[in-house]
Amino acid sequence: MININLIDKIYKEDRRSIARAISIVESNNSLTSEYLKEIYKKVGNAYRIGITGPPGSGKSTITNQLTKYFRKQNKKVGIIAVDPTSPFTGGALLGDRVRMTDIGMDSGVFIRSMATRGSLGGLSKKAIDAADVLDAAGFDLIIFETVGVGQSELDIAQAADTTIVVLVPESGDSVQAMKAGLMEIADFFVLNKSDRPGSQQAYTALQTILMIKDHDEDSWLPNIIKGVASENKGIDEIADEIDRHKKFMKDKELFNSKRGKQAKIRIKEIVEHKLKDELWSETSENSLNLSLQKVILGNLSPYHIAEEIIEEFKNRI
Amino acid sequence: MININLIDKIYKEDRRSIARAISIVESNNSLTSEYLKEIYKKVGNAYRIGITGPPGSGKSTITNQLTKYFRKQNKKVGIIAVDPTSPFTGGALLGDRVRMTDIGMDSGVFIRSMATRGSLGGLSKKAIDAADVLDAAGFDLIIFETVGVGQSELDIAQAADTTIVVLVPESGDSVQAMKAGLMEIADFFVLNKSDRPGSQQAYTALQTILMIKDHDEDSWLPNIIKGVASENKGIDEIADEIDRHKKFMKDKELFNSKRGKQAKIRIKEIVEHKLKDELWSETSENSLNLSLQKVILGNLSPYHIAEEIIEEFKNRI
Repeated sequence: MININLIDKIYKEDRRSIARAISIVESNNSLTSEYLKEIYKKVGNAYRIGITGPPGSGKSTITNQLTKYFRKQNKKVGIIAVDPTSPFTGGALLGDRVRMTDIGMDSGVFIRSMATRGSLGGLSKKAIDAADVLDAAGFDLIIFETVGVGQSELDIAQAADTTIVVLVPESGDSVQAMKAGLMEIADFFVLNKSDRPGSQQAYTALQTILMIKDHDEDSWLPNIIKGVASENKGIDEIADEIDRHKKFMKDKELFNSKRGKQAKIRIKEIVEHKLKDELWSETSENSLNLSLQKVILGNLSPYHIAEEIIEEFKNRI
Repeated sequence: MININLIDKIYKEDRRSIARAISIVESNNSLTSEYLKEIYKKVGNAYRIGITGPPGSGKSTITNQLTKYFRKQNKKVGIIAVDPTSPFTGGALLGDRVRMTDIGMDSGVFIRSMATRGSLGGLSKKAIDAADVLDAAGFDLIIFETVGVGQSELDIAQAADTTIVVLVPESGDSVQAMKAGLMEIADFFVLNKSDRPGSQQAYTALQTILMIKDHDEDSWLPNIIKGVASENKGIDEIADEIDRHKKFMKDKELFNSKRGKQAKIRIKEIVEHKLKDELWSETSENSLNLSLQKVILGNLSPYHIAEEIIEEFKNRI
């Protein structure tokens, strides 16, 4: 059963209750959907920003600076940070440490780092579910910060109203970003560390790639903002560009259709998760275990066994 | 319908037919399972090796050197290389170029690089399906080379009979590898670039971590092999350790149970893929599209709509 008291406390912005609710929705059990259905009437007011890019491009720094900027406007900011490469690059670990001393003690900021190991997929589902909790708790802005490698990270970045791709002026970075699928999801770019040599060439290269894309006068054209986030340069411009994109989306009535597309992706993921849970009942697991010997001995292929299990499932439900 | 002529040509090791068959199984349509069921009787003889580790640890170099080693023994080698970080690190691109001049022209070697962008999951399924094609075509060894970030890359590395984790002597790399889940999947470690400063400390740190793990005299203890793959140092030792692990698995009758566990994971993935295809029929898509407006207006949560779609699906099948 869901705990109505907990939900009341979320609405009252009780930090401990928010953290607890996020843990519940992350655990992805039968309660997850009950809680998310209950709070949904309070969801939808937060503006969601995705910040993505390659490791080391300075996403955490930009997130931190933007958060401080929004805090000066008295807006409450929730941050959901996901970085599967962090064990090796050390990026998120360092970023988290800076973050905690910088903005972590501010009661108008809520930060959640998400573990990605062993999550067996469903990472974007969890991140978006957690955002709903923060949204219901009255946060004005929610920032998804994810590294731009891997499909689930791209999925999270795309679950935002405005998606920002952060690049650094390194040789060919813009071409690589295009290959990595970052060009299609960017509402605008931040060329960070633009005090480095080669910055102007990188800017021109990125501009060239953007011009190749089809567009007409009714469509949004992604801009490129130059910045040096570590020196707080370009942060005002980034905030302004977010506003300009938001206004464009509302004026052209694109805002709801974008949210509709996101809802569609999300619903599909929820359906698939729920069906998977029903599928792997004890019966299915047992019949699978019994068949394994035949597969190892080469008598039946995994595809044969899979078909048998599907038939069984269809008869069961 | 499947093309029996194509299958015959696979068995005759016709390279163009092998490449074509892999493309068919990668495309993941209704033919995929038909082909894989048909060739399964010839599958199971290849020994499968997983090579994984952080970006820049030298996985490609080790794969290339090992391949040359096996070729001297007249064994045929298939390589399936997967690296989602490659657009940024440049790793796989460079590795591929070296590889092509090094071993790419050898008719006893077949190399397949797998794109990971936009694959919408199912990457490990595709890699394992492709390995079945190479197995049926008579390759003696199949090497899965994947970067050790992200769940699907770990899944691929674990689909091998022997899994090798490559690390370099960098401060705290072994601790990070443990956090990343690489410790649990390693049958042994290669400490590559071990001519670098700090190599002995890294070796000791790794050894310490390995000793923490529970083990008894019947269980396999992962070794650490030092190497400098770029100078071909340690390659013989790696090949010997693969043999030693293989012999241990067979002697202790662990070989088939490991393959059984892998088959189980694989069958589950196939079942889930097939059900997903049936789920998103035109009917489901339409009813989903009709519901989106209610979600955007906040009248119904995505979880409500998901439950409706599941009910509909159950009634349909």
